[in-house]
Amino acid sequence: MKLYGMSDSGNCYKPRLLLAKLGRTFEHVEVSSHVGATRSAEYVAKNPNAMVPLLELDDGRLLAESNAMLLYFGEGTRFVPADGYQRALAYQWLFFEQYSHEPYIAVRRALLTFPSRAKDATPERLAQTFERGEKALGVMEKRLAASPFFAGEAISVADLALYAYTHVAGEGGFDLARYPAVGAWLRRVEKDPGHVPMDWLP
Amino acid sequence: MKLYGMSDSGNCYKPRLLLAKLGRTFEHVEVSSHVGATRSAEYVAKNPNAMVPLLELDDGRLLAESNAMLLYFGEGTRFVPADGYQRALAYQWLFFEQYSHEPYIAVRRALLTFPSRAKDATPERLAQTFERGEKALGVMEKRLAASPFFAGEAISVADLALYAYTHVAGEGGFDLARYPAVGAWLRRVEKDPGHVPMDWLP
Repeated sequence: MKLYGMSDSGNCYKPRLLLAKLGRTFEHVEVSSHVGATRSAEYVAKNPNAMVPLLELDDGRLLAESNAMLLYFGEGTRFVPADGYQRALAYQWLFFEQYSHEPYIAVRRALLTFPSRAKDATPERLAQTFERGEKALGVMEKRLAASPFFAGEAISVADLALYAYTHVAGEGGFDLARYPAVGAWLRRVEKDPGHVPMDWLP
Repeated sequence: MKLYGMSDSGNCYKPRLLLAKLGRTFEHVEVSSHVGATRSAEYVAKNPNAMVPLLELDDGRLLAESNAMLLYFGEGTRFVPADGYQRALAYQWLFFEQYSHEPYIAVRRALLTFPSRAKDATPERLAQTFERGEKALGVMEKRLAASPFFAGEAISVADLALYAYTHVAGEGGFDLARYPAVGAWLRRVEKDPGHVPMDWLP
């Protein structure tokens, strides 16, 4: 199977990280929004939402959305809780990641570090993403002060999703030293077997 | 169990709609962001992310995020596909709804119709939410021209999630007449047994 994505995108890192941990083989195909490749006619025919990552199975079926891929590959493994309520908590934190975390913590990093996004880095946008990113980190700190992982005692897809952009939040101007429970959790995720860094490619 | 939420919020409508269709009983507790109730100390102690809806089970366990509730209640019913790939497509569209649809289609409706949000309705914000909301409707139109429901041949939680704000997109200034496949799909969702309107409360 093929995974279309960017090597410096946290969203694209999520399925790579899980596939590496599960020992699954796949082909990485670099498609970079930096150079407009996500908006090419050929790519938009595969993903009308013009975003990465995109999964193409060997039979040609397609799947978009990084967190949907985590659930698809995680099903039946230790990364998706078997208990219904704990599984629901994993879902909760996956949606939190896409709605309350990524649009601020990932976007602020992109505004500050991707030359193609520099024109969007207005003072208002930087202030808004900082305020809401800090709120998200505060919500995470509260949860992680009470539980080793987001869905409970064991690591799950929710931790992999939230790790992707949290571990590089410093590049977006967030000071993780202010969130000690988040910092300790980042180290727990990294110690889990099979961890690979963001720039790892198969 | 208790469902904390707003009677005029599409996100809060989602679990109400599914619970009504499943014939499950629950208590609605009105918590309105219009009057600051989602930011009260008592509420934030239950949901640190200060958003509705929030589910409180009879044993006190809590669950946030509307789409997580859809998956939690939908598991094992006709609203979550049994096939792994179709289930993954349902996940894909649930994440699309929260990342690429709700922040524009729901938010533009809020900016235009909720007095508490009028101060945020700047020309720039209205233009941005219009452009991205139209993009989301275009992505939906393409999918629904090829498939009766988002995850395939049968209705799923993805359709309930996307119905919630799409059916009131006109209140946000979107012209649904330009999206005939979306319009036909709205009617199919409404014809599915047990449908209740957004202002339905138990």
